[in-house]
Amino acid sequence: MKFNLTEACSILERTPALLDELLHDLPDEWIMGNEGPDTFSPFDVLGHLIHGEKTDWIIRTKWILEKGTTAPFEPYDRFAQARESERKKLQQLLEEFSLLRQENLAWLRSQEWQEEDYEKRGLHPVLGEVTLRNLLSTWVVHDLTHIAQVTRVMAKQYSGEIGPWSSFFRILNF
Amino acid sequence: MKFNLTEACSILERTPALLDELLHDLPDEWIMGNEGPDTFSPFDVLGHLIHGEKTDWIIRTKWILEKGTTAPFEPYDRFAQARESERKKLQQLLEEFSLLRQENLAWLRSQEWQEEDYEKRGLHPVLGEVTLRNLLSTWVVHDLTHIAQVTRVMAKQYSGEIGPWSSFFRILNF
Repeated sequence: MKFNLTEACSILERTPALLDELLHDLPDEWIMGNEGPDTFSPFDVLGHLIHGEKTDWIIRTKWILEKGTTAPFEPYDRFAQARESERKKLQQLLEEFSLLRQENLAWLRSQEWQEEDYEKRGLHPVLGEVTLRNLLSTWVVHDLTHIAQVTRVMAKQYSGEIGPWSSFFRILNF
Repeated sequence: MKFNLTEACSILERTPALLDELLHDLPDEWIMGNEGPDTFSPFDVLGHLIHGEKTDWIIRTKWILEKGTTAPFEPYDRFAQARESERKKLQQLLEEFSLLRQENLAWLRSQEWQEEDYEKRGLHPVLGEVTLRNLLSTWVVHDLTHIAQVTRVMAKQYSGEIGPWSSFFRILNF
């Protein structure tokens, strides 16, 4: 499938409400459980998504438009949320994510995009040259794969309770 | 984590609204895309979940309570939805799933469960003896892993658009 800004925005717009539906009012065990050392809990993922709204997707979009490949993007800190989410409640994070996402999509939709704009290039500090099309498509993929991660992590919390059925759930074994 | 009926119901209750949030009004390309031959699209997953409401979880719960291990469960048809979803629209499936799930959870919550009930046994046609605890925990895991599957399948639709970022997305490669 080809990148389409209207569709991408439609998917990106849903993620805050979807995570709220999935996580609100669940006991901490469901929210804070992860897949082992250095892996994300649902709480961590939410902090990670918030950090992305503040420092990644729209910041890098503007960087591409303004600086092109003359300087690389600022590196993205994938573990910043441990610091930034400290002492916050899940409900605060859900609200913060929802607001930031709304603001970022409002800006994105307010621009007049030409098809050729999506081919403009930036410089990723690790990956090298990337296009705006790559960046905005990755934003969508990033949301969807983190929703997949959250539900996988939650499913794993019951892996000791499903008994013989564990042989049917490949997804729990990676 | 240990199985807990109240928490399990709370998670199971969210799935219809969550899938509605994720899928409503998206173009067919997003709904019908899959991961290759004999894999499920989001549309297929929804049909599969509906078939489970009709023939699996609550039916097997009652079977355990009424017949125990005297006879195996009816085998579950994992591909029935191709037949049953034919000519239906996504929105119909979302509504059908939501209604069936509500009915099934209403029944489950209306029963007076004792802790020892969860150790009652049934006979799975492939897996052999399973407990009610196993069955109800698997229902939760089954929902969560299918949400993970739907979002993974959707993410893959943009795998050709993300360029160099593909190296960061392990999840797209399985």
